[in-house]
Amino acid sequence: MTKLGILDHGYIRLVDVMGSDLTVVNAARVSYAKESSELSERDIRLIKFLAREGHTSPFRHAIAQFEIYAPLMVARQWWKYVIGSAHAEGSGDSLDAWNESSRRYITEEPVFYVPRDDEWRSVPESSKQGSAEPIAKSIGAEYSSELHQLIALGETLYDKAIADGICAEQARLFLPAYGMYVRWYWTASLQSVCHFLAQRLEHDAQKEIQEYAKAILKLIEPHFPVAVGELLSD
Amino acid sequence: MTKLGILDHGYIRLVDVMGSDLTVVNAARVSYAKESSELSERDIRLIKFLAREGHTSPFRHAIAQFEIYAPLMVARQWWKYVIGSAHAEGSGDSLDAWNESSRRYITEEPVFYVPRDDEWRSVPESSKQGSAEPIAKSIGAEYSSELHQLIALGETLYDKAIADGICAEQARLFLPAYGMYVRWYWTASLQSVCHFLAQRLEHDAQKEIQEYAKAILKLIEPHFPVAVGELLSD
Amino acid sequence: MTKLGILDHGYIRLVDVMGSDLTVVNAARVSYAKESSELSERDIRLIKFLAREGHTSPFRHAIAQFEIYAPLMVARQWWKYVIGSAHAEGSGDSLDAWNESSRRYITEEPVFYVPRDDEWRSVPESSKQGSAEPIAKSIGAEYSSELHQLIALGETLYDKAIADGICAEQARLFLPAYGMYVRWYWTASLQSVCHFLAQRLEHDAQKEIQEYAKAILKLIEPHFPVAVGELLSD
Amino acid sequence: MTKLGILDHGYIRLVDVMGSDLTVVNAARVSYAKESSELSERDIRLIKFLAREGHTSPFRHAIAQFEIYAPLMVARQWWKYVIGSAHAEGSGDSLDAWNESSRRYITEEPVFYVPRDDEWRSVPESSKQGSAEPIAKSIGAEYSSELHQLIALGETLYDKAIADGICAEQARLFLPAYGMYVRWYWTASLQSVCHFLAQRLEHDAQKEIQEYAKAILKLIEPHFPVAVGELLSD
Repeated sequence: MTKLGILDHGYIRLVDVMGSDLTVVNAARVSYAKESSELSERDIRLIKFLAREGHTSPFRHAIAQFEIYAPLMVARQWWKYVIGSAHAEGSGDSLDAWNESSRRYITEEPVFYVPRDDEWRSVPESSKQGSAEPIAKSIGAEYSSELHQLIALGETLYDKAIADGICAEQARLFLPAYGMYVRWYWTASLQSVCHFLAQRLEHDAQKEIQEYAKAILKLIEPHFPVAVGELLSD
Repeated sequence: MTKLGILDHGYIRLVDVMGSDLTVVNAARVSYAKESSELSERDIRLIKFLAREGHTSPFRHAIAQFEIYAPLMVARQWWKYVIGSAHAEGSGDSLDAWNESSRRYITEEPVFYVPRDDEWRSVPESSKQGSAEPIAKSIGAEYSSELHQLIALGETLYDKAIADGICAEQARLFLPAYGMYVRWYWTASLQSVCHFLAQRLEHDAQKEIQEYAKAILKLIEPHFPVAVGELLSD
Repeated sequence: MTKLGILDHGYIRLVDVMGSDLTVVNAARVSYAKESSELSERDIRLIKFLAREGHTSPFRHAIAQFEIYAPLMVARQWWKYVIGSAHAEGSGDSLDAWNESSRRYITEEPVFYVPRDDEWRSVPESSKQGSAEPIAKSIGAEYSSELHQLIALGETLYDKAIADGICAEQARLFLPAYGMYVRWYWTASLQSVCHFLAQRLEHDAQKEIQEYAKAILKLIEPHFPVAVGELLSD
Repeated sequence: MTKLGILDHGYIRLVDVMGSDLTVVNAARVSYAKESSELSERDIRLIKFLAREGHTSPFRHAIAQFEIYAPLMVARQWWKYVIGSAHAEGSGDSLDAWNESSRRYITEEPVFYVPRDDEWRSVPESSKQGSAEPIAKSIGAEYSSELHQLIALGETLYDKAIADGICAEQARLFLPAYGMYVRWYWTASLQSVCHFLAQRLEHDAQKEIQEYAKAILKLIEPHFPVAVGELLSD
């Protein structure tokens, strides 16, 4: 289980992992020149202590790498997190690397996210942001259909522009880009991954990005069961 | 001259500046406990030396702050820069802060970038990326018109979806987002600003982002005439 | 009041500041294209909300710059903070720039920190780290005297080695470096400065660095009275 | 060969590695949704191209982790690099994590670096910084002996202060700290490691840190033979 499907065409794949719960313990104990090779009860207590007290630097020595395929609107929120627009009171590097596709040149056929008939959500009553219950499926069906048609129109115009010799970096203006899938590599420390999860698993995060956060959690928890549990229980 | 118009509706405003060429000199000389209060020939030689030898840390103590209003496709390239997707062999923090608008909730009417009839560009012969000469104005006129219509259609569907109670974070799927204007604050060190300029003033950068880079240059050069000149002459 | 003396020979000088409480407000409201020019009650409520909810990115657009002269052992702890060894669950850049003196070449006479007779502290009973009550002044006097002599001996050997043609980068091995004063520039965002203060004003931080933290607080509070108050009340 | 001895008591141990030359290739090709599982000639040409053009972000997805035991004066220069004091025109995070020992509490016996009789170096004629030829062994012998004695005296005073109940964070003022060994974990991207090497393998870097740089190179080159070669040939 290293690849999980998300939304209509998206996915997350766990490309690589470095370290384990022991990495956190050994990084924290570097002062004492002591190294564990098996996770003891004492080691678990140390991880709990570090997470509880906010001594999170040892969690930066464990690394995970993902390939992500998601609509641009999800990618944008992710980037904002990485840049720090939404980040907490921390400081120091985020240990994040990022490599992603754009449409400045033609690579593959564009693919778009279209919510299914029963996936359109209503406005929450108490907030200007976020979403609430699904709207009626009959209304949803109408919007799924409209969105399919708008995308088809955009693609037709995009293809026509390319055929007329217009450069890809301008032709892309015809694509309804918020729903367009982009693909990227994300390499991040366990601290950074868990900080992302703590924010994006929240009920007021956009539902689409919550789906990605849940998949990330499923993929990394088996590799760092104690550390992930403690960092997310804060 | 602290605000410059760009493209059809965009702009850059220089919100604030901290320091001058002297800041670079004094940060570099902190070991010697010497401080200049007027820029001497010797100070200028020091700035030249620092820029030439790649000792760029003193340039990180001078700061500029901008408010930027640009199409999302320009903003995305900017973010990739800030995250470091395109960054050079450096390391260390980028001294960048970023705060931008999204459309997860309704703030103001969306505004879109539409190239004028004579602004559509052709594909370069030798490269899959970038753009070359303008295409014929008569063909451009057709695409400007098509884009206006597509945007109008997208906005109509967006407004209808909002009126039907669909949450803004999904309704925005109807907007042709690559051309949609977003607004953000960018606070960055002189080193970071000049590194951005070195990349985005290049002839193979997207023309739209080149326009923003030129405006940034015009706005900061009067504040750091020597340092900007040296950092960009590398 | 832009320079405050600390310990026997140290100081902090506020070199420059960019922004005010309004900067935080305007960065946070960039989505709305609204700008305040005077701090209203509503603006103050926004700052309180941002600090309480951990939406700290707007605080990264206000900047402060310090020149600091402190014993190496204080500088080391500061660096560890900046690198992130002790940092909280955040991510994103720290907006910190750093320029400091070393002794790889000869600049000025070395200066050393020596606690006064009544400044030597005892071991805390309950912890392996930190310090408790002062020890008896008579014992302290003995150690102040011993330290003065050890420093004098180290300096004599250092000078002799330099006179014998040994390079400064090795000769410095004779200097009791933990107490040796170093000088550096620190440029940091308000978020970063306040995160540093939150940690270093704590009773279990080393007393010497607490003195520096108190001085930083005195120097920046007049410039950002609301923001500093809220960030430190968390 | 995962641990190499350096100087009289130091060492570097390669704790862990994530990725290979293929990681760089696959991160760079994420736009094309193509993945290599064996390094082809075409892949090698891509790595050369990326290194030559300064498109270094793909190199940030390969990670190495070291345990380092080095004199404080070496560690300080390393930190300055990581913070960015000496860093080039880059921007973006450095993907560095750092965990190190201090002497705020008692962990293990302090260990000190003392140059051997023939390891003391002279001042270069043309520069205020760095070092040149070794000085005469007979003079070196004198300084090795003096340094041993000074360290012994410092340790005696340190132990006496601890015995008299003085807290460790002050007692350490008696230790000649520049030569004292500290131990830390360094987790960094291949880009960051190679940038460090490019600087610290230079002939004007302090000789002691050059030794550490050479060991790092030996340890990582077998894991990323193409990428390391290309990044260092710039």
